[in-house]
Amino acid sequence: MRTAEAFRKKSGIDVRLGHRAEAIDIAKSHVSGGGPDGKPFDLAYDRLLIATGAAPIVPRRPGFDRPEVAVVKTLEDAQAIKARLQSGSVKRAVIMGMGYIAMEMAEALRLREVAVTMVKPRAELLPWLDAELAATVRGELEGHQVELRTGFDVAGIEAGKGSGVALVDTGSASLAADLVIVAVGVQPNSRLAADAGLQLGPSRSIAVDRQMRTSNPAIYAAGDCTDAFHVVTGQRAWIPLALRANRAGWAVADHVCGKEVSLQGIAGTAVFKVFDLQVARTGLTLAEAAQAGFAPAGVTIASSSRAHSHPGGSSLQVHLVGDRRSGRLLGAQMVGREGAAHRINAPAVALHAAMTVEQVSQTDLAYAPPFGPAWDPLLVAANQLIKKMQEAS
Amino acid sequence: MRTAEAFRKKSGIDVRLGHRAEAIDIAKSHVSGGGPDGKPFDLAYDRLLIATGAAPIVPRRPGFDRPEVAVVKTLEDAQAIKARLQSGSVKRAVIMGMGYIAMEMAEALRLREVAVTMVKPRAELLPWLDAELAATVRGELEGHQVELRTGFDVAGIEAGKGSGVALVDTGSASLAADLVIVAVGVQPNSRLAADAGLQLGPSRSIAVDRQMRTSNPAIYAAGDCTDAFHVVTGQRAWIPLALRANRAGWAVADHVCGKEVSLQGIAGTAVFKVFDLQVARTGLTLAEAAQAGFAPAGVTIASSSRAHSHPGGSSLQVHLVGDRRSGRLLGAQMVGREGAAHRINAPAVALHAAMTVEQVSQTDLAYAPPFGPAWDPLLVAANQLIKKMQEAS
Repeated sequence: MRTAEAFRKKSGIDVRLGHRAEAIDIAKSHVSGGGPDGKPFDLAYDRLLIATGAAPIVPRRPGFDRPEVAVVKTLEDAQAIKARLQSGSVKRAVIMGMGYIAMEMAEALRLREVAVTMVKPRAELLPWLDAELAATVRGELEGHQVELRTGFDVAGIEAGKGSGVALVDTGSASLAADLVIVAVGVQPNSRLAADAGLQLGPSRSIAVDRQMRTSNPAIYAAGDCTDAFHVVTGQRAWIPLALRANRAGWAVADHVCGKEVSLQGIAGTAVFKVFDLQVARTGLTLAEAAQAGFAPAGVTIASSSRAHSHPGGSSLQVHLVGDRRSGRLLGAQMVGREGAAHRINAPAVALHAAMTVEQVSQTDLAYAPPFGPAWDPLLVAANQLIKKMQEAS
Repeated sequence: MRTAEAFRKKSGIDVRLGHRAEAIDIAKSHVSGGGPDGKPFDLAYDRLLIATGAAPIVPRRPGFDRPEVAVVKTLEDAQAIKARLQSGSVKRAVIMGMGYIAMEMAEALRLREVAVTMVKPRAELLPWLDAELAATVRGELEGHQVELRTGFDVAGIEAGKGSGVALVDTGSASLAADLVIVAVGVQPNSRLAADAGLQLGPSRSIAVDRQMRTSNPAIYAAGDCTDAFHVVTGQRAWIPLALRANRAGWAVADHVCGKEVSLQGIAGTAVFKVFDLQVARTGLTLAEAAQAGFAPAGVTIASSSRAHSHPGGSSLQVHLVGDRRSGRLLGAQMVGREGAAHRINAPAVALHAAMTVEQVSQTDLAYAPPFGPAWDPLLVAANQLIKKMQEAS
């Protein structure tokens, strides 16, 4: 986006690349570490910002250091994968993981006519997605010849017969691949903060308040390394996504400069595209809602993306979760070929406003035949959920 | 959708087609009118529902009874227009009006290669739309060779030279046409209610409460003939659209059957498609906000429908209106080639929840590169509006 030189010249910001911060001395307000050629550095601060991000998880098992194994985090990671694809040596790829990044890579590789197998140890494709919606995603992947191997726990990666590698699972099944994408999730880069004794949040993320301050008020943290308050539960959560990371950076700058800042928190709103499908969520799943102490009820409906009189419509599935006790909307999920990505924002706003399902069911949403039925799928689902919540649990 | 016979047989509902209700006798709880062959009828009721809808406005000026002149209200209207088009006699059409129906007809006619001119007496294309957004709509129409003649007030329609008709305006300019579509708005069919002494609302719609009861509690009204409470102003408004009409019908049935009903009201959310453009609105315009007693501020931004890194994005314009005094969001408008239709529902929900612009700016909206920038256009606009609202007015 911008070079270190540009930061220095245009903004007067002393950007030091190749400098690894290794320790924070909170008593002395100093950060120390190693610069280029191992030259040590030591810097004093009045305010410190930790923005160390998150890193892809790579299993500590044999063979993950082989050149055929790649993660998808940096631009350089992507360029290396692209170069490998362009060399023509990749006919078969195995993707470890079935999350957003894994799905996007599956699509990218299939579009380049690479044979793709996705593997994961657990049984569910997308455990956070309602089963009916997940079945649609499975159909989309299989319709594009992506082989799905759940219950495949990679014990190690070894040299393949001839070229490439072989992934061997704990049950000694084997899969051949020219390229292995490891996309099994990320973890916060919080060691520096933990070593300095700063409070940690869920999944060892760095705990911050609504002003993005850590447990030490002179030290801020922002980005994928930090937690956030969840607007539905009020509890700390670690859901590292771009908007929150970006928003947090601005909030730190504002707060350091003396502006009033109080971040509401996150609803866990997210979307990904896999082939022609849009998969979106916001708020809690049924399981998350139960765990957070709610008395959840859920419904799943299938509606149409356009009015029945309008050609070209497709199925849109909506899953809603509500709380029987308070009547509150707790979460929403949508899967469809059109509209899901933008439709999810309406329930996301409703979660921020702590609206009840009844209130959501009464909202005045836009209607025209090319864009949906007169009763928007969200309203249809809300009406169903009201009935479900009234039933004995 | 369903025949009178089906209503009778399947639902036990005595549907009497060809019966025109002409008077309500409130003291006697009777409705009277004329049936087929002028045979009078007189029916007693315990509860009465008036669902008389709205009718297209046709100017009482010379020549509007000519066969070349059509309105677009019923299926029969549309079939008649279609038959005329299929006869091949329509080369030039004039559309009176520049609202939703007029726009949709302009597109439908251009797709059939009919030359189209749209006319209206006033100067603005879409007076309720922010000027920058309206300019985009104008560009879209003109890009599809639709001629726009604002300031053209049709005084009468007369026989044309050779075939077709000529529309003559009050300044005696003239336009030739083989087909004239009159789409200058609708009016509520409220005469029956007014004659019975029932209270009327804005634009002579039938005033109803949150249970859809008229000023006489035994008489309900629902559909395009009734008003509604506007969730932003709390005042009565007449904005006849499909969702409210449909929702009102269910509400009446529920209430008559003893269920608790209390309709929140409308936000005035609407969308139309014109060629490749989606034009959406919810809540109040700047002018409507000022008229309702708010101290409004407005901003207009242009963002991208996708992340900059993602190919195929297009411009998305967002106009937001907020109240300087309370900080509340009052209205939103969006114009773009993708996403506008569904994106409008997020601010619509925010209006129902009476959220401030600051609260909207903090919402956690979905992000993935194919569907928008990390900072959703709604958030970009909200951030701009916060600054604008803080400026001296």
